[in-house]
Amino acid sequence: MIEAGDISHTATYRDSMIFASDNWAGAHPRIAASLSAHAAGYEPAYGNGELDKIVSQRFSEIFEREVAVFFTATGTAANALSMSVCNRIGGVAFCHAEAHMTVDEFGAMGFFTDGARTLPVAGGLGRIDPKALDRAITRFSHDLAPAGQPMAVTITQATEIGTVYGLDDIAAVSAVAKKHGLPLHMDGARFANGLAALEVTPAEMTWKNGVDIVSFGGTKNGCWMAEAVVVLNPELGRDLQVLRQRAGQLFSKSRFMAAQFEAYLADDLWLETARHANAMAARLADTLRASNRVRLAWEPQANEVFAMLTREKAERIRAAGARFHEWGLPQSFDGDLPEGEAIYRFVTSFATTVEEVDAFGALIA
Amino acid sequence: MIEAGDISHTATYRDSMIFASDNWAGAHPRIAASLSAHAAGYEPAYGNGELDKIVSQRFSEIFEREVAVFFTATGTAANALSMSVCNRIGGVAFCHAEAHMTVDEFGAMGFFTDGARTLPVAGGLGRIDPKALDRAITRFSHDLAPAGQPMAVTITQATEIGTVYGLDDIAAVSAVAKKHGLPLHMDGARFANGLAALEVTPAEMTWKNGVDIVSFGGTKNGCWMAEAVVVLNPELGRDLQVLRQRAGQLFSKSRFMAAQFEAYLADDLWLETARHANAMAARLADTLRASNRVRLAWEPQANEVFAMLTREKAERIRAAGARFHEWGLPQSFDGDLPEGEAIYRFVTSFATTVEEVDAFGALIA
Amino acid sequence: MIEAGDISHTATYRDSMIFASDNWAGAHPRIAASLSAHAAGYEPAYGNGELDKIVSQRFSEIFEREVAVFFTATGTAANALSMSVCNRIGGVAFCHAEAHMTVDEFGAMGFFTDGARTLPVAGGLGRIDPKALDRAITRFSHDLAPAGQPMAVTITQATEIGTVYGLDDIAAVSAVAKKHGLPLHMDGARFANGLAALEVTPAEMTWKNGVDIVSFGGTKNGCWMAEAVVVLNPELGRDLQVLRQRAGQLFSKSRFMAAQFEAYLADDLWLETARHANAMAARLADTLRASNRVRLAWEPQANEVFAMLTREKAERIRAAGARFHEWGLPQSFDGDLPEGEAIYRFVTSFATTVEEVDAFGALIA
Amino acid sequence: MIEAGDISHTATYRDSMIFASDNWAGAHPRIAASLSAHAAGYEPAYGNGELDKIVSQRFSEIFEREVAVFFTATGTAANALSMSVCNRIGGVAFCHAEAHMTVDEFGAMGFFTDGARTLPVAGGLGRIDPKALDRAITRFSHDLAPAGQPMAVTITQATEIGTVYGLDDIAAVSAVAKKHGLPLHMDGARFANGLAALEVTPAEMTWKNGVDIVSFGGTKNGCWMAEAVVVLNPELGRDLQVLRQRAGQLFSKSRFMAAQFEAYLADDLWLETARHANAMAARLADTLRASNRVRLAWEPQANEVFAMLTREKAERIRAAGARFHEWGLPQSFDGDLPEGEAIYRFVTSFATTVEEVDAFGALIA
Repeated sequence: MIEAGDISHTATYRDSMIFASDNWAGAHPRIAASLSAHAAGYEPAYGNGELDKIVSQRFSEIFEREVAVFFTATGTAANALSMSVCNRIGGVAFCHAEAHMTVDEFGAMGFFTDGARTLPVAGGLGRIDPKALDRAITRFSHDLAPAGQPMAVTITQATEIGTVYGLDDIAAVSAVAKKHGLPLHMDGARFANGLAALEVTPAEMTWKNGVDIVSFGGTKNGCWMAEAVVVLNPELGRDLQVLRQRAGQLFSKSRFMAAQFEAYLADDLWLETARHANAMAARLADTLRASNRVRLAWEPQANEVFAMLTREKAERIRAAGARFHEWGLPQSFDGDLPEGEAIYRFVTSFATTVEEVDAFGALIA
Repeated sequence: MIEAGDISHTATYRDSMIFASDNWAGAHPRIAASLSAHAAGYEPAYGNGELDKIVSQRFSEIFEREVAVFFTATGTAANALSMSVCNRIGGVAFCHAEAHMTVDEFGAMGFFTDGARTLPVAGGLGRIDPKALDRAITRFSHDLAPAGQPMAVTITQATEIGTVYGLDDIAAVSAVAKKHGLPLHMDGARFANGLAALEVTPAEMTWKNGVDIVSFGGTKNGCWMAEAVVVLNPELGRDLQVLRQRAGQLFSKSRFMAAQFEAYLADDLWLETARHANAMAARLADTLRASNRVRLAWEPQANEVFAMLTREKAERIRAAGARFHEWGLPQSFDGDLPEGEAIYRFVTSFATTVEEVDAFGALIA
Repeated sequence: MIEAGDISHTATYRDSMIFASDNWAGAHPRIAASLSAHAAGYEPAYGNGELDKIVSQRFSEIFEREVAVFFTATGTAANALSMSVCNRIGGVAFCHAEAHMTVDEFGAMGFFTDGARTLPVAGGLGRIDPKALDRAITRFSHDLAPAGQPMAVTITQATEIGTVYGLDDIAAVSAVAKKHGLPLHMDGARFANGLAALEVTPAEMTWKNGVDIVSFGGTKNGCWMAEAVVVLNPELGRDLQVLRQRAGQLFSKSRFMAAQFEAYLADDLWLETARHANAMAARLADTLRASNRVRLAWEPQANEVFAMLTREKAERIRAAGARFHEWGLPQSFDGDLPEGEAIYRFVTSFATTVEEVDAFGALIA
Repeated sequence: MIEAGDISHTATYRDSMIFASDNWAGAHPRIAASLSAHAAGYEPAYGNGELDKIVSQRFSEIFEREVAVFFTATGTAANALSMSVCNRIGGVAFCHAEAHMTVDEFGAMGFFTDGARTLPVAGGLGRIDPKALDRAITRFSHDLAPAGQPMAVTITQATEIGTVYGLDDIAAVSAVAKKHGLPLHMDGARFANGLAALEVTPAEMTWKNGVDIVSFGGTKNGCWMAEAVVVLNPELGRDLQVLRQRAGQLFSKSRFMAAQFEAYLADDLWLETARHANAMAARLADTLRASNRVRLAWEPQANEVFAMLTREKAERIRAAGARFHEWGLPQSFDGDLPEGEAIYRFVTSFATTVEEVDAFGALIA
């Protein structure tokens, strides 16, 4: 699905068998080209240039409503600023037990909110269980009232383990959040992969099903550094401009953030790269299944495949040049993990090639 | 001073008379080229790639000692993280009354340090007066003991008003800081412009004269988004890796930060662009002086010129296409400001052309 | 166990059947007398008076080592300041899932530490399970490394559910903490009740078994407002003086804090009141057991009794004047809770009288 | 003005010549008596008891409007919580250059607000100059916009240097605050002394002249530890209940805070003690003036006298048993301070006796 003009580019990646993370890939050629195209000339700083406005408008078109867009340099910043917007005294944000915000961001959320915290909620296959969520929030109006105040619910799409919330799943979580008067945040570090998996519109995957604010990721899907907080609910976001300035996330040459998103969103590049990454993951899953030597931990839905290997086999494959990470046992995993085996994660990206996947398949078999 | 190969680039800027800020310029062609050159291929994320190590080593060479380098997306983040490193309970950082950290960063310093604050110190021409500094710090061991604890001294090089601390000036401030056991931070958003003005080495402008930690700016001088905290004193910096992660300033595709600095520091590009910007400022100052129509507020030493114009004249020049900002009266200004006049700031950059300056000179005359 | 001279005092409480909380009781007559005795005369402010020094010395005697003592107005402040002392960037404090610090203090810990958080650890009967603790901490050196940095382990003595850590239990938790290089904090809101239950020395219950810092509570056990952070490990505590000042916990007329502790610790009043409270709880438990109408949820060891009643019965008893709270089902509870029943908490204090307990017993039967 | 029944009490103080601070005094006998009177019996905890309600109602009567009252253990906590209520992102509170909040509270305000800060404003005799205030705030809508957001104005009554804002002064400051849409806070650590000096009502000294929220001090004026945030503007204060809980300022045996205020406000005890302290300061000033040996630095209006002595004389007086502090030169002082002289502060309190003052006068003469 990488187009002809990109051949010299993809050549670089061929045979590398890099499945460590989608952020090991570089920048898509069209992103790089857009950056270069906007390198010359003067532009008002701090997001006041023409390109920033155009891109902001483009986001509104894509989401089919007036949205406010705030670029950030990292997904951690996008998540933490989103939580700042929802912040309350003694605030508690409900997330999945494996959410990036709670296990991967070194307490950024607590720091940005001056002490609010995540409360992990159970749920199978990386998705919050709406009933467990309801119980968890309800406790704060009774037993846990002195523990703090519920402030938000946050879900990750695609999830940390490569699954996807269906529209019904989102609606169900949203209904619980709304019942308790809480805003719903979506950590969309892999927003495009989730969208491509569901084959729905951004509006459907967000506000039409109750999402109020999104961490919209571009970096993992072909940008070199482009994340954004997209505010769908106009009641939120009022303070975001100053919150991000105070957080060191207001960029003087903001045009270069805008330039990445311009190319990313043009001609559906973002969907194209996400579909490609998802397709490569599906191909990888097929290859693994066909090998009869490796079991999938669960069915992949986006661009991450989790499989069980013996540590010995994993070492051998790594010795042959492949790169991938061992994964901690997710709480939702109830499969059989024999002695000596572990779960490994294989991530595909816009840059993954058929050759890479097949070379890896050959290695497994 | 812009080289032949860049002609098509500078063409874009010709005649634009943009002196609003050096961050209105885009990216230098060699920075853009480096970004493109590194766009393809896989690299370990989060600063663990080869290029990050090479660039880090390059910083050590340039500073003539082992330094630790932490990229940040903005100068505000570099300053605030530097202050985090120096932080104490009830901390007080001594800065010039016009320092960016205290008047331009929306309280980032207080936020990153959970409530530490800047204490403005007087001093002429944008430079902290060492005697005033000594008095200010000394008060905290007597009258102001219950006000908090001194934690750092910070100076800006080049200063906010286009002047420069000489090596002796830095040594004098440093002596006061050391006397009180405080680390000395340099806000080097325009580090290269200061260095080019002094014609000294980075080592001389920093640790050889007592600077412990630097906010090293690249963005204003030709990068598109590249700042760094450079830790010269190995006692500091221990926590910076986790501080920046928590602050959303650890970049997954860190290679693109590194790629900018690689080009920036290669073949002395950074000095070349800074010298060019400084020379354009000097040329602009000469032009203004020669015009006999505009008085300089003080002598420029780096890439910023401050001059007094009537508001009426300022409007006429703007109508002709020039861009520049009115400036608040600095505390150090003791000149004569007649009714109807204001001080205006004119900033030059790597992208400023002789033609721009001369066109502006013609407009003034 | 309340002495003769206190008869008029205890008379006030007779027949009231108040088991809502030990902080519903007032001040012990000897505490009140000490406050009055120290009301007159001048004393240097902010803890520099003679009485403060005497009381501080008394703490060192009681703990059989040089300790540093910092009074606080509330147990929440004592806990949160203790955590401040242990704080790290992205810090994680390991506590029992039902710890006051995590479920009852409205995020004070996160606020005082600028975003550190508690991580609940499982364990039966209100005590952290050392093996579960070890697993939880170990995960932070592997899977959860990007989640933050372990900073402390904290246990509650007596526990939230009226049980007590034996010396071996404390030593076992401490061994895990030390293995991971973490300080061990004891939330001693009911320190005296725990001590009285174990019949050991303060030194044995703390530093001789690895406790580094204690929230030492006096309020629940007969003071009117007297808590303290007691630092046993001289490496900690260096910043406590300024941390508490910044937190609004440095008292100008500190002598009145000292005066409470003076009386509290004199002639073992604190042990006497704690023993009394514990004995009243034991008597209450015996009464309930004997009634054959109410089952104990678990065996009480200090001054809290938890029992299962039908809600209907609970309402009837309340209508007769008794006061007590329904309790959320603790995670460690694996008993049988029939439809219509709930767990209720009955707390005794220095002020509880035999008459109260027996009147309540008669009501139950 | 101390009544007959207090003779044994005041005897303790006689001849002590303690003018170090009003918080060196103990508790007024009627405060101590009230504490003892409420020592026995059960009361619901955390401010839900009968006495808390009665006292809260009493505050409303005194302020002639429905107010919300939140007890705190220290004035620092009252100030910092008041600022929390006014907090904005990058917040700036305008205070006098010598305000306790900015020079005496170890950064509590910055800590409670996660990084907001005080901006000192000039003004003679300890009072903010309304014109200087207007200029300072106005700058934040122009030059200093990127410095942060104005969030509050705060004044101290009586001031740090023993002067008092007249009603007109308060109205003038309030007019500036309101013009800029900012709430006005009064640090009333010596509220009663200010009130007694002006001979006006609490309503006149506060909301009738635009004050929105007050730190209402009782400790310095005869309580042993009783401060409160009194919210006059119902738009503020909504979050105070949870803010103080999170700050460790919600007291389980809150009745003892209430008990102090009950006695303090009963039969105008608070005004009586304040009038006494003010009268003692006036007598001391008269004595000093009459001595012809000591010059007053400025005219005292409340319970603090500032006078110029040679250091030598100060030492001699101290050797004779008097206690008082040297004071930093206030910015508003424009008198003549000969070599060898310094400014000293003499504070009187409810406990100061005529004998003390006269003994001191004899010593001076």
